Parts: sequence; C-alpha cells; structure tokens
Amino acid sequence: MVKDKPAVMDATSHKIWDLVTIGAGPAALSAALYTTREDITTLLFEKGVIGGLAAITDWIDNYPGFPKGVAGLELSDNLRLQAERFGAVIELGEVMSITDKGTHKLLATTSGDIKARAVLIATGSDYKKLGIPGEAEYFARGVHYCATCDGAFYRGKKLVVVGGGNSAVQEAIFLTRYATHIDLLVRGDSMRASEVLQHELNDYKDKISVHFNTTTDEIVAKDNVVTHVVSTNSKTGKQKNIITDGVFIFIGLRPNTGFLKDTKIALDEIGLIKSDSKLETNMPGVFVAGDVRSGATMQIASATGEGDTAALMIREFLHDLK
Amino acid sequence: MVKDKPAVMDATSHKIWDLVTIGAGPAALSAALYTTREDITTLLFEKGVIGGLAAITDWIDNYPGFPKGVAGLELSDNLRLQAERFGAVIELGEVMSITDKGTHKLLATTSGDIKARAVLIATGSDYKKLGIPGEAEYFARGVHYCATCDGAFYRGKKLVVVGGGNSAVQEAIFLTRYATHIDLLVRGDSMRASEVLQHELNDYKDKISVHFNTTTDEIVAKDNVVTHVVSTNSKTGKQKNIITDGVFIFIGLRPNTGFLKDTKIALDEIGLIKSDSKLETNMPGVFVAGDVRSGATMQIASATGEGDTAALMIREFLHDLK
Repeated sequence: MVKDKPAVMDATSHKIWDLVTIGAGPAALSAALYTTREDITTLLFEKGVIGGLAAITDWIDNYPGFPKGVAGLELSDNLRLQAERFGAVIELGEVMSITDKGTHKLLATTSGDIKARAVLIATGSDYKKLGIPGEAEYFARGVHYCATCDGAFYRGKKLVVVGGGNSAVQEAIFLTRYATHIDLLVRGDSMRASEVLQHELNDYKDKISVHFNTTTDEIVAKDNVVTHVVSTNSKTGKQKNIITDGVFIFIGLRPNTGFLKDTKIALDEIGLIKSDSKLETNMPGVFVAGDVRSGATMQIASATGEGDTAALMIREFLHDLK
Repeated sequence: MVKDKPAVMDATSHKIWDLVTIGAGPAALSAALYTTREDITTLLFEKGVIGGLAAITDWIDNYPGFPKGVAGLELSDNLRLQAERFGAVIELGEVMSITDKGTHKLLATTSGDIKARAVLIATGSDYKKLGIPGEAEYFARGVHYCATCDGAFYRGKKLVVVGGGNSAVQEAIFLTRYATHIDLLVRGDSMRASEVLQHELNDYKDKISVHFNTTTDEIVAKDNVVTHVVSTNSKTGKQKNIITDGVFIFIGLRPNTGFLKDTKIALDEIGLIKSDSKLETNMPGVFVAGDVRSGATMQIASATGEGDTAALMIREFLHDLK
C-alpha cells in the first residue's frame, strides 16, 4: 500500500538534513527506516562497511525473526534495502567532527560540510585484534570476539581463549557451559582481572587451564577448519601448538569515537558514549544507539531496537524544534 | 553447528525453573531464544495468543530485517520456532499472582504453582477498544491503534481519528503528514488534551476537522475495504456517515498488569511497570520488557531488543544467585 520512494537526493542537495546518522550499521539503518517512513529526510554516513559488524559475520543465530539463523550479509542487505525503500540516502565517507551551531549541527566530512537538525551517532565499536596470521582469515569461522553470539556453536568442543582481563575471565567461565575444555592464554605473568573473578576462576580448574607468559602467535586451520594455535612461552622461548576447535579473543573494545575528541560529548571510562533514557547525549539533538552507546550489549537485536527507539525520540526532538 | 534441542520438559517437571516469562509475545520469545541458547531453563506462560499483538497484525512494514515487510503471523511464528529450537517451553494458561519467596518467586497459575529463580514480565498492553460493529472485523485492515506503525499506509488518503485526549490529538497531527484530510471525532463537548496540544491543533485547521459531541457507532466496509464511519451527534441525535479510507482509534492503553495488584511492583501513572537501566523491577529477580514496560515505544523491534537485553541481565542475575 505504501508508495515506495526512490533515493534521489544526495548529501549536498539538502540545505539542512533533518537527520544525519554517523555510521550505517543495524542501529542506524533501523532508525533510518523509521525516520524516512515518516518523511524525515535522512542521510547515513558510513566510513566502512554498510551493515557494520553484522555484515561481516558469517552466520547469525540469535537475531529474532529468523528461526534457522541468517547470514550476516543477508541480514545487513535486508536492513539496507528496507531503509532505502523509504528514501534513506547512504553516502560513503568519514565524519571528522561535530559542532553545535544552535539551530543545527555542522558535520565536517570527507564530502565537505553537512548540516543536520539532529544527529544519530551509531558508529559501533570494534573488538581489539591480536594482529596475528590466521586471525582475519578465519574471523567468524573459528575466530570469535563475542561469546554470547558464537559460544553455542562450540557445544562439546575444545576452545582457546585469549586475554587476561575481566572480560577474558568472565567469558572463559561463560564458555565452559558449551566447551569441554578451555586453554586460557595470558600474555603477562599474572591476571589483570578482578580478585573476585580470579577467585571464581579457581572453581573451574578442571575445565579451564591457564597459561601465563604465553603469546598467541598464529591461528592455523586445515581445509578452512581451525585446528590449533601456535603459542610461545615468553620466559622459556619455547613454542607450543595448542589443539583447538575455535579461538575467542577478549583483549578489549575500541569504540569508534575518535571524531568526538574536540567535542564535550560525554564518554564513559571505556570510551563509550553516555546517553539519557531518551538515548540523547549531553549535546542536545545528538543521539546515540547501538554498540557505541555506554551500556550497549553488543547484540544486533539491541542495536536495531535502540535504533527504532532513537528514531521516535528524534521525531519528538524535531517536532519540538519547530 | 548447534545441536537443536527438542522441547521435552513441561511446566511441572522442573522443581524450579531458571526463568519463567509471563507472556509469549516478541519480547518474551526473544528473551527465551537467548536464555535457552545458554541452557537457562525457560518456561513461557501465555494466556492469549503466542506472538502477542504482532501475531494478530496483518502486515508489519517496520520490523528491521524484512525489506518488503512481513506478515504478523509469519514473524511471530518465526519468533516462536526460534525460541523452541533452543529448548523454550511454551504453556497456555494464566498467571494470577507473583510472590517473592527469597530464593525464588512463586507464581500461582491456572496450571498450579510454578517456581522460578527469575521472572520476566512481558504481558504487553492492549489498546482500548470502542466495542462497535466493524472494529474487530477490520482490525489492521482499515482499523488501527498505532499511527507510527500503520500511518504510512495512508499516504494521500482520508482518515477518521477517534478520541479527545493527548494521544488522539498528537497522533492526529502526526497523521497529517500522510493523510490529505482527517475527521477527528470527540465524544464529549470539549477536548481532554492539554492546552498546548489544543493550541497546536489550531494550526492544522485546514487538514483536521474536529467534531465534538460525536459518538462513533459503526465502521462500515465494502468488499473488505473500509468506506465510512457511522457517527451520531449526541446533542441533536442526528446520524451522519463520514467517508474515510481508515480509522485510527486512540482512547487509551490497558497494560496487562492485573495479576500484580497484590504485589508492591511499582507502576507508573498509566499502569505500566517501572524498571531500572537493567530492566529489573523493584522486586529483585523480576524483570520487564516490551509494551508493558514504562517508557515502552509499542514497537516490535523495541520489544525484541529489550527481550534480548533482559535475557543478558537475567543471566547476570542468575549467575550472582549461585
């Protein structure tokens, strides 16, 4: 029944956009589907991959609505098509800064200056990488950064977990509900995890073997299936192969917030963006949703849900602007 | 790669369930997909329709991931299958009360007493109905209760809006972005909407005609397409047909919280359940998600996103219980 609208506008044809999203992952695409359906002119600005982390994930088992799971690329294509159907415009490029001009925000971008009445920051967060051979090649097919997302694929299997901080210990313990055995590789000679977590880790001695002073050097696969990790004991210099079905790497999160360095938009202690119950940041008219938001669950369903909630809050904000 | 688990348990076979959800709409089904995937035993208790309001909605255009939209029944079937795939158990019946027993909650239900370590309230809210001929028959096919959801289906069409409160006026104004003309039918001789909104309504005189003292008696269709509304002026007794393409009814929300009357679980001024940033109510271990939560957007994507977030919070709660 809806008259679909072609995306005929480009970034510069609008004097002031109602909404510019920074990022075009699940949160921004879901917000855009809501706003454009209500004739709020919307430009999505993406410096990387449209669909974000979802697009580069092989298989997604836990996005509600797909009983057998869905390929990450299919889901992100769907999200893009759905937003474009109602008139969302997507442009590739990078936003370098946001300045509050009162009546609008000014975005300095690689495509020139862009004006927006409201801004949605949905740039996501990246998992920190080890930067070793095999890590990128087997991403999401043996190499993982999210236990909640991919742990269930390893029922009855052996795993390697890399990291010595809170999240590494927490997620290693969590993964024992699936894996028969876990080798936890810690680069330093002690844990950085909290006392409480280290204490808890002791209860899992039979399932988790901790290796200190151990670097993770390479992830090796045969016929595209991960078989082992090459590691080195930094004290003895001895190299060792650790047989495994998969590798989970928990060495931190890198929120994509570099472009905010000259603003006063408030971040939490790990660099995620703070927001109120309306998903608005401390710069009026600038909202945040998805993996870059403080409190984010790093789950696609949370990101799309927040995108939709943000769209309704942005609509209210734009209405009150008039 | 995941070994799917058949739903072999029933409500009474577990001495204490890890999680019981009250309701089995999109929020509860999404939460259950997360919890069961992590071997948290989960029972969903539903007194009405599995899939909730989504299941009885003809066509859903704005659930992220379905670029052409999706039939409500298909989406809710998908959500059910996905939860059941990982071992969620669904039982039909009604929960009459929740009592906090310290180590667990006791639910009095039509299937007897059920014990749960954690509870997710996801009973949703119903839109209040006029109870007139044609209203149920043409639900979601000419008769609507959500402008954000269905307004876009009426681009360039004529609409009737029923109600005299804040939401009726707000949504009538919102619907002017689609409809060419709106007849607003108000039962009383004045608005209950706020002064601010009434003032704003004046700016839409050319698009919204307000009819006071006007009851809405019947919604009439021809060949399954709504053609007009039969109304009566309660002062003059004169009946009148109002030609329209669709009817939006905004006479209030009825949150499904009757079973909470003997608890101290805090509600807001319209009877929706209050929660903190972890979606936990003021009864520890009792969480809330979806349309029955104070602050809910009444959108499916928000409900599934909250269901997933609630599941992660419930996992943390259960972990800390040990």
